[in-house]
Amino acid sequence: MISFASDNYAPAHPKVLEKMAQVNQNHLPAYGNDPFSEQAKTLIKTHLKAPAAEVFFVFNGTGANVIAIENVVHSWNSLICATTAHINVDEGGAPEKILGTKLVDLPTKDGKLTPELISPVFTRMGDEHTSQPNLISITQSTEMGTLYQPKEIKALAEFAHKNNAFLHMDGARLSNAAASLGVGFDEFTTACGVDLLSFGGTKNGLIAAEAVVIFNPELAKNTRWIRKSNMQLASKHRFLAAQFLALLETDLWKENATNANQMAQRLRAAIVNNKKIEITQETQANAVFAILKKDDITKLQKDFHFYIWNDQTNEVRWMCSWDTTPAQVDEFAKAINSL
Amino acid sequence: MISFASDNYAPAHPKVLEKMAQVNQNHLPAYGNDPFSEQAKTLIKTHLKAPAAEVFFVFNGTGANVIAIENVVHSWNSLICATTAHINVDEGGAPEKILGTKLVDLPTKDGKLTPELISPVFTRMGDEHTSQPNLISITQSTEMGTLYQPKEIKALAEFAHKNNAFLHMDGARLSNAAASLGVGFDEFTTACGVDLLSFGGTKNGLIAAEAVVIFNPELAKNTRWIRKSNMQLASKHRFLAAQFLALLETDLWKENATNANQMAQRLRAAIVNNKKIEITQETQANAVFAILKKDDITKLQKDFHFYIWNDQTNEVRWMCSWDTTPAQVDEFAKAINSL
Amino acid sequence: MISFASDNYAPAHPKVLEKMAQVNQNHLPAYGNDPFSEQAKTLIKTHLKAPAAEVFFVFNGTGANVIAIENVVHSWNSLICATTAHINVDEGGAPEKILGTKLVDLPTKDGKLTPELISPVFTRMGDEHTSQPNLISITQSTEMGTLYQPKEIKALAEFAHKNNAFLHMDGARLSNAAASLGVGFDEFTTACGVDLLSFGGTKNGLIAAEAVVIFNPELAKNTRWIRKSNMQLASKHRFLAAQFLALLETDLWKENATNANQMAQRLRAAIVNNKKIEITQETQANAVFAILKKDDITKLQKDFHFYIWNDQTNEVRWMCSWDTTPAQVDEFAKAINSL
Amino acid sequence: MISFASDNYAPAHPKVLEKMAQVNQNHLPAYGNDPFSEQAKTLIKTHLKAPAAEVFFVFNGTGANVIAIENVVHSWNSLICATTAHINVDEGGAPEKILGTKLVDLPTKDGKLTPELISPVFTRMGDEHTSQPNLISITQSTEMGTLYQPKEIKALAEFAHKNNAFLHMDGARLSNAAASLGVGFDEFTTACGVDLLSFGGTKNGLIAAEAVVIFNPELAKNTRWIRKSNMQLASKHRFLAAQFLALLETDLWKENATNANQMAQRLRAAIVNNKKIEITQETQANAVFAILKKDDITKLQKDFHFYIWNDQTNEVRWMCSWDTTPAQVDEFAKAINSL
Repeated sequence: MISFASDNYAPAHPKVLEKMAQVNQNHLPAYGNDPFSEQAKTLIKTHLKAPAAEVFFVFNGTGANVIAIENVVHSWNSLICATTAHINVDEGGAPEKILGTKLVDLPTKDGKLTPELISPVFTRMGDEHTSQPNLISITQSTEMGTLYQPKEIKALAEFAHKNNAFLHMDGARLSNAAASLGVGFDEFTTACGVDLLSFGGTKNGLIAAEAVVIFNPELAKNTRWIRKSNMQLASKHRFLAAQFLALLETDLWKENATNANQMAQRLRAAIVNNKKIEITQETQANAVFAILKKDDITKLQKDFHFYIWNDQTNEVRWMCSWDTTPAQVDEFAKAINSL
Repeated sequence: MISFASDNYAPAHPKVLEKMAQVNQNHLPAYGNDPFSEQAKTLIKTHLKAPAAEVFFVFNGTGANVIAIENVVHSWNSLICATTAHINVDEGGAPEKILGTKLVDLPTKDGKLTPELISPVFTRMGDEHTSQPNLISITQSTEMGTLYQPKEIKALAEFAHKNNAFLHMDGARLSNAAASLGVGFDEFTTACGVDLLSFGGTKNGLIAAEAVVIFNPELAKNTRWIRKSNMQLASKHRFLAAQFLALLETDLWKENATNANQMAQRLRAAIVNNKKIEITQETQANAVFAILKKDDITKLQKDFHFYIWNDQTNEVRWMCSWDTTPAQVDEFAKAINSL
Repeated sequence: MISFASDNYAPAHPKVLEKMAQVNQNHLPAYGNDPFSEQAKTLIKTHLKAPAAEVFFVFNGTGANVIAIENVVHSWNSLICATTAHINVDEGGAPEKILGTKLVDLPTKDGKLTPELISPVFTRMGDEHTSQPNLISITQSTEMGTLYQPKEIKALAEFAHKNNAFLHMDGARLSNAAASLGVGFDEFTTACGVDLLSFGGTKNGLIAAEAVVIFNPELAKNTRWIRKSNMQLASKHRFLAAQFLALLETDLWKENATNANQMAQRLRAAIVNNKKIEITQETQANAVFAILKKDDITKLQKDFHFYIWNDQTNEVRWMCSWDTTPAQVDEFAKAINSL
Repeated sequence: MISFASDNYAPAHPKVLEKMAQVNQNHLPAYGNDPFSEQAKTLIKTHLKAPAAEVFFVFNGTGANVIAIENVVHSWNSLICATTAHINVDEGGAPEKILGTKLVDLPTKDGKLTPELISPVFTRMGDEHTSQPNLISITQSTEMGTLYQPKEIKALAEFAHKNNAFLHMDGARLSNAAASLGVGFDEFTTACGVDLLSFGGTKNGLIAAEAVVIFNPELAKNTRWIRKSNMQLASKHRFLAAQFLALLETDLWKENATNANQMAQRLRAAIVNNKKIEITQETQANAVFAILKKDDITKLQKDFHFYIWNDQTNEVRWMCSWDTTPAQVDEFAKAINSL
């Protein structure tokens, strides 16, 4: 069955497994003390133009987000995110469990925070009776398939820093953002003042690998302990590194992400004039959000796999991935337009 | 300086200290194994008409709320409360820290939840990716000085139970509610299906004592361990019990609460026709909420102590307590009306 | 029944309640922002000759210990204590629950740690796979009724600091130590390099009040949040302060502690030549530990209340308190000697 | 450099990557809802002869242990393990951080617990002041290279169950145990009353995959939430499953483990008569423990990679793995014997 369910329903890119096979020889020190891990860290820092940054590989996105954030929040802090943020509604409460920290989630129209939206949270500063906000977490590209422009990120970083807070970016789909913006990873992270980054891999063709990037190494003094005590330190660490090597040594990251993005554009273009459906978000990365009649959703789901995003409004999410083909999109669009 | 700041700015009622002096003789088993503790538990159960309930004394309101709730929530659950709830904005993040549980806070106009407001949270049940709501926490009387009617509580309890969730009542001002409703404590708790109750004392003339009431003893099997490991088990426990004996053996609870409520009514009545101020909430317990000009707030605060509730709207809270006098209210009202 | 069970079976000293009654007038700012709280903090700092220290009042000893320690440990640290330490075996797991930190407990013969005992724990430093020790917690006087001499404490502080660790003192019975050593509180705390102190009150005649003292104010930057989020911030805070004022404004602390210590000495002296019992510890504070025949324990417990410390060795603990009388001791000793 | 450092310094078996490549096609539901995950679960249950058991794949051994244990312990419980247990000294404090639970670690001579050793911990049951033991965790094969016989495990399970406690087995090297005992996995797990099992894979030739097995499905009702909120739920879950399929569909698990075990035996045999070294443990799985002169350790480490187990006794650990060759062992033994 053709699937527009999620970019993690997709398989891994074959080159990822090839790279894993290449590093699969000899005994090597575990836990990251091997040359491949060093190479992969350097590669990420090079892409980010952040030579002083510290990089830590982990198993999955929830792990990356929580471990990144634990470096700077206390349990009596709060962190601010969009209501639709993955950390807020799709991590099974891991942030609250592991960090003990309050999440202040703000409704948005497009999954994007702004200084104006956030500003009211920074009241009661210094008041011991209420959780003290000290981190803003944004997702790039967002869970709603939208993008922050670099200047928007810069404004958020400046706002955060002015308020003695940090800016975290959940980059589960960082490559989709870079590909869509047509810039290097650095231009909307390092150059904008992002403090903590979850650099995603799994949703862009890897098997299971994400990286935590901490731009100011002073903030990373405890990260090794945080990663270990949160059960995210891989023993045969070379295999996490290999996945990132496969992704970032060549333009594979861009090819994968560009395909996913283009397939979403293709889908949107094919249905945008269909009056029976309402496209609810800009299509700036690899997802199309739309509202359909309940019956039409049910019909479509007989032949295609996808998720209902909002049961109450009948909004659905159609997600493209690195391996989505034009033929698949066209078949799906045809089915939609035939409703 | 006359204070309308908080009912915990007030001293204790002298009878409370008298009772503490009465129990202050002889060696007695610590940690609640003394006869006064037994008496006080029985007294609370009698007031609640809940002979099977389990009662646990603790030091303060945050402790009572967190310990009550820990009996039924896991870290991967969520609990639902009003945005203005004490557990959400005035406990320094203790619920998140101690429980590791997400708080889903819902905006309300009057501090009161309804099944309609709550219903949308009970989606994605059974979905491992998102925190599973299993507790609704209401405050009676609310942080906004309003009251739930018994039938409203009953409706919330029914809604909760239908959804395999529990109903917790933060009763920091439980006596104010009972006095204002003109009913016994049982009629809006036991009789309505409340599962967990924080029975407040400190804000109604005690020094420092609250009680956790668990109506179904099956839910209380772990409470002793929960209280101890949360640092809320008093060694010289008789002194917590004595405070509740002073409050509940006679009608002291009612006299104290009635005075506080009446003083709030007196204040409201004295200023309700003043066009310069907007009273923003019903006055159903011991607080008056109003919006004034910023300048007028500043002037008033020179002679009277009270808190600005909302900096952005210039809403203030005027709180009466067991010892507030008519003369104090009249002087304050006069000052308000002279602005 | 005469009780040698615990110093927290004792009532409060009447002067404590008198002082609480004295401060029980007028509205005063809550949460410590009242003049009595300031006075009490100053008084403690004066006793400790530690003008720069920060003092925080809390409800009970477990709260004091956990809150003191949370200022300096992370969850991936470990803390070192004697196996018999209150934090290890009598706080219901609160340290692990609240701090998430490993306790490394070391067997001792007398409840006292030494650098030699501790030294082996400081291996694997810098190894992310194992909890990193960074705090040593000692109890003064110890749970075994013994005392650290100032030079022993100094040696431990030096050892700790040399290893980038902190020294915490659980002073639940701090007054007993000071009285027994015949020195001021400062001479075995401030002067020895203790970093964090739980200054006990409840076991020396208070109702329920302890203080956290943080000698280096740099370490206290987060303590307000830590106390609040751990549910140990009293609203009517003046009543915690009043208890310490009663204890420390006069020599009441010394009178109470001296009596308890002397009664323990009197008991020891009366039974020390009794061949049927083996006194197992030095009697340096207010407790006598002894091994008796199981049957004899059972007989004694018919008329006197006390605890079996170790079921396997038939070791018992006889604890004297501020109000223990010579007549009670003599009656008890007579019963022991009549076995 | 030839390495006897750890079985996780070894690469993965090539068949594991082959299997991962085989499952690497088509979109498949994420998070375990794919056919390969079902197959792998069934395979494990078949090996264990435990058709009712529940199986959950996770990323690493620390994750498996913590997630297994969280199903049955509360923060106010304690769990019992050998001092040398991986959960005690090699998981960076993850058990304490994630569970908030006390670990009671018991010194052993060979890494093995017995009912006799454990029994004294089960005192003070029902006493709210102390953590309540309710789980015994053993490692099979142990961290000391020794083995529990099935009857020893049965005795521990019976002891645990008689004391209302559970038995957890950390099976990071479960295959080494099965191969050495010459029995199926079921004979020393299911048949002996083990309640919770961490079924290891990574140390026996996988890349990164472990399984949590819960024999009584009643205990597994919350496991999905526990795994997710502990950041151990893989999105592209088929790749965890594939690794176990590679290991358990054929005898690969046995071949790998047998080789590792035999190489340890070969090493032991080659040096056992060398008077300069003292072999300190039985060699029942894939490790040899020995005491050498400090200088000799230093010399050996110039050409061979291995860890000092105990700095104070100069005890070293030599670990063999699935790919250790007779030639490597012989070269190493020759070097040892040439010291």
